Amino acid sequence: MKRPTRAKLDLGPLPHLLGYALRRAQIAVFADFIAAFEPLGLRPAQFSVLLLIDINPGCKQSDAADALGIMQPNFVALMDDLERRGLARRAPAQTDRRSHALELTDKGAQLLGKARAAVTAHEARVTQSLDAEEASQLFELLARVERSLQAPDSDS
Amino acid sequence: MKRPTRAKLDLGPLPHLLGYALRRAQIAVFADFIAAFEPLGLRPAQFSVLLLIDINPGCKQSDAADALGIMQPNFVALMDDLERRGLARRAPAQTDRRSHALELTDKGAQLLGKARAAVTAHEARVTQSLDAEEASQLFELLARVERSLQAPDSDS
Repeated sequence: MKRPTRAKLDLGPLPHLLGYALRRAQIAVFADFIAAFEPLGLRPAQFSVLLLIDINPGCKQSDAADALGIMQPNFVALMDDLERRGLARRAPAQTDRRSHALELTDKGAQLLGKARAAVTAHEARVTQSLDAEEASQLFELLARVERSLQAPDSDS
Repeated sequence: MKRPTRAKLDLGPLPHLLGYALRRAQIAVFADFIAAFEPLGLRPAQFSVLLLIDINPGCKQSDAADALGIMQPNFVALMDDLERRGLARRAPAQTDRRSHALELTDKGAQLLGKARAAVTAHEARVTQSLDAEEASQLFELLARVERSLQAPDSDS
């Protein structure tokens, strides 16, 4: 795929706006993830959901959506897809019959095992230009920006 | 709007994966942009397109899409919307009658003027937790990550 010849047009102040710079970097990192995980049929959000369920088996659907910062309707669509593919399932929650407890299927656990192995190589590629200290600083600054924008009524 | 109580679930390695950290920060910054620019009816990508056309009047549609890293079909949809709202227009390009030269309308230029004023306040909010040196380092690291992932056949 031919890449853009960005020098052609003047981007003006855009590269100096944080949202723009974040979005460009995020798209580049996601493109690497999407290409690397295509053989497994996993996109970034699907991988996050499988991983979260694996670490928190039986978690409530609404808590999982909140933890990942995914809006409920989008999370429901994600779970529908994972359930249709036989990778995860919704069981009635023991404490609250109206909500769902999320679990991986054996097939989901197997796929996640392969994905965990592949993610190390992906992570090495996307951080290849950073030394350990720079990577650590980048994570710290990103987390700080996110935290500073949380609503005042945040209870986290 | 109530915010997630993230402490409830264990996110495991997710916060230490660059794609995840970038996506969380990007969503938080975009949420601020979207809320601030809702009165103007502009989302981040629409603002970027108006700004790019203003700086590069008469630019070709395909070059604008490339410069912003937006896929052509998505860019066409974006321009369709801006054109329908009377903010931008496509004129036949002088050098190549098959391609389009993009221009702002007076209404688009006026709206962009208001947006340029609003973007300063937005930028101050989203970088509020960073001092000048940290902000500059964040931009540098983001740009380095993006550049390092450009395809080998890149001509930029």
